[in-house]
Amino acid sequence: MTRAQEVVAAFIAAVERKDIDAAVAMLAADVSYENMPMQPIVGADQVRATLAAFLGAASEVDWPVRREMATDDVVMNERLDRFKIGDGWLELPVAGVFEVNGDGLITLWRDYFDMNAYTSQLTALTGGG
Amino acid sequence: MTRAQEVVAAFIAAVERKDIDAAVAMLAADVSYENMPMQPIVGADQVRATLAAFLGAASEVDWPVRREMATDDVVMNERLDRFKIGDGWLELPVAGVFEVNGDGLITLWRDYFDMNAYTSQLTALTGGG
Repeated sequence: MTRAQEVVAAFIAAVERKDIDAAVAMLAADVSYENMPMQPIVGADQVRATLAAFLGAASEVDWPVRREMATDDVVMNERLDRFKIGDGWLELPVAGVFEVNGDGLITLWRDYFDMNAYTSQLTALTGGG
Repeated sequence: MTRAQEVVAAFIAAVERKDIDAAVAMLAADVSYENMPMQPIVGADQVRATLAAFLGAASEVDWPVRREMATDDVVMNERLDRFKIGDGWLELPVAGVFEVNGDGLITLWRDYFDMNAYTSQLTALTGGG
């Protein structure tokens, strides 16, 4: 594994444990978190709040990586981000791009996905709509 | 460039020229074209029809690649797929995954993007909505 792959794997493992402190400890202070349908979320504190919101809705989190390519500084992966919500699982196909700096901290986390695939499942699982 | 990168670069160039015959000639007969919000489109003839539909709506097509990682068989890229429609440009951020077989033909073309980012711009540019 490259250095960037090791950092990203540890970050995803922290997210899966819903360990927000451990996840945020792997982010640079000026990290940019870019969910491509939305505006970037800049800064570790802002990312912490976002992580707390979407991890807080899930009782279990499982983000299997189906494919990954990497250099020492960059990881591109395909994932299936799974969230247990109530009795069901929300499953979101995602393509992610991560940049890791010389201190081993994530400076860019960019995810490509279909927002409606997320919101429509969330509505169904929370009994809304 | 790896062999897969050469094939994918030639494919994107054909799409940008709106040369559907040249683009389809680079696809395996059983290619799977997966726009992740939708069901896979399987088979070169089916992909031809889809390409004709979305390229037909555009007077110019420009798909700059902002990042790419590759092996001999696989390409992952980040693109900004741009379509000139009427007087304006539709711009769609995309993460793509391509698999290329031993004959130099594309067997998988998978794109991750936000469908609403596409449809909302298309509606605005065609004067609908």
